[in-house]
Amino acid sequence: MQFSAMCQNLLGEGETANYVTTGSWSEGAIAEAKKYCIPNEVTNNKKHKYTTVDDPSTWNVDPNAKFMHYCRNETIQGLEFHEFPYHVVPENQLLISDMSSDFCSKKIDWHKHAMVYAGAQKNVGPAGVCITIIREDLIVKGQMRPNTPMLCDWHKYASAPNTFQNTPSCWSIYMAGLNLKFMNDRGLDAITAEAEHKSGMFYDFMENSNGYYSNGVDAKYRSCMNIPFRVAKGDDAVEKKFLGEATAAGLIDLKGHRSVGGLRASIYNAMPEEGVQALMDFMTKFKKENN
Amino acid sequence: MQFSAMCQNLLGEGETANYVTTGSWSEGAIAEAKKYCIPNEVTNNKKHKYTTVDDPSTWNVDPNAKFMHYCRNETIQGLEFHEFPYHVVPENQLLISDMSSDFCSKKIDWHKHAMVYAGAQKNVGPAGVCITIIREDLIVKGQMRPNTPMLCDWHKYASAPNTFQNTPSCWSIYMAGLNLKFMNDRGLDAITAEAEHKSGMFYDFMENSNGYYSNGVDAKYRSCMNIPFRVAKGDDAVEKKFLGEATAAGLIDLKGHRSVGGLRASIYNAMPEEGVQALMDFMTKFKKENN
Repeated sequence: MQFSAMCQNLLGEGETANYVTTGSWSEGAIAEAKKYCIPNEVTNNKKHKYTTVDDPSTWNVDPNAKFMHYCRNETIQGLEFHEFPYHVVPENQLLISDMSSDFCSKKIDWHKHAMVYAGAQKNVGPAGVCITIIREDLIVKGQMRPNTPMLCDWHKYASAPNTFQNTPSCWSIYMAGLNLKFMNDRGLDAITAEAEHKSGMFYDFMENSNGYYSNGVDAKYRSCMNIPFRVAKGDDAVEKKFLGEATAAGLIDLKGHRSVGGLRASIYNAMPEEGVQALMDFMTKFKKENN
Repeated sequence: MQFSAMCQNLLGEGETANYVTTGSWSEGAIAEAKKYCIPNEVTNNKKHKYTTVDDPSTWNVDPNAKFMHYCRNETIQGLEFHEFPYHVVPENQLLISDMSSDFCSKKIDWHKHAMVYAGAQKNVGPAGVCITIIREDLIVKGQMRPNTPMLCDWHKYASAPNTFQNTPSCWSIYMAGLNLKFMNDRGLDAITAEAEHKSGMFYDFMENSNGYYSNGVDAKYRSCMNIPFRVAKGDDAVEKKFLGEATAAGLIDLKGHRSVGGLRASIYNAMPEEGVQALMDFMTKFKKENN
């Protein structure tokens, strides 16, 4: 929904926005933006099969765009900005980030961002909630474009702290609240350290597999949350066997997104180190039996 | 969201729609329609303080409108169409009904309706779900108006039975599924009979209170789901006392909507007859002590 809402609330007639394309979610964002403007695609890493990002010095940035949008972590391709190249953002241009899949796994540089949004269903809570944090001066009454549904009107939400435009997904919000409290007690630094440790051991493990397991993403952009990988260089039959045996061993949801195939290990905050270890143990055994 | 979506998906440029205004939710629907067309207000019962509806023979129906929209049950005003005056709908004009608050409490005449929608949070399940039932020939690829958010595009939903445009509110959907099964096993006739019995005994009780408790709605339009009422002809101090003592006695959520004041008893499917009886017992005692 925020794909539309950010355009509907921020873009006036004739204004445009910069979009950084690094995977499926950025592609979704720019597709939606085309309904509201002619978006400027700053860079597109499809030519690299989404495994890296062109050097930011080569990006085609429109200095007159209203905002620049990027997705911090691409779940399908497993590509994450550990630090966005803030220097490419023109002064006074708003920076917007879709942090759906790595929200609450690492710090956000609030001084750099005008708006951050995140579906809750990864690290925060159950599906049914989208957390949207917007710089206060950007929430202006009546600024939304004509034909904007009430539920996309930021000002309506912000101006009604004691009421609602609709009946929200109460249970999901309540559960997210409990988990936010839990994470807050734990501290973000500890959570970040654990995320880096869990994903790091898995990348290391694959690097030591003599190419039997592989993740093609540039080390600089490797995701701490989602790690797509191939088995036996992407041999269909072997990957199917892997998935079947893994599922039988209780290691579930390892199928890669249908748009890219292969396998994928998602290591959100709720996945304990023991879970990653169990997967690696299985993979060691599978390799021994099948290589 | 369906307030917008039905206009975005069904109304072409220059087309309009008929809106029946009978309370706050119909007012919300027509307000949203003004973003997409010049809606024709068929009738408006605000002049009657929402207690009845003008005779349908006097309604100002636009024969060329694309659809006619009504809200079957107004939660705030406690006004319900037990049978919509179908004869006023011009032939071939689509009839759309917001059944959010009485869905699954009575039958729907499917042959008369082109689209029915209902937020789940009354009789169906937890908040976070909207059930939308649309005649199949009205779901057409690319028919939606420009600038329509993806999440309002009916065709996107309908054409993707095995995937999703977003991660839906899974828990709410699962719980709604369990309750739908439960209601199906019970049978709609039994549920309708209970709803009529529970609300009937409460209306009768008030009629026998010599005006101490009053609900001003025309008997023909009395809601089986939401019964607004006044205590001591709407005496502020007495109603405040009533609310305080009722809450202390465990009878909660009886405050009327802030837009109309007074009290309101919502008697959705999940409220047992014992709950209605407990409220009446409290009201009998309160009247004895305060009248």
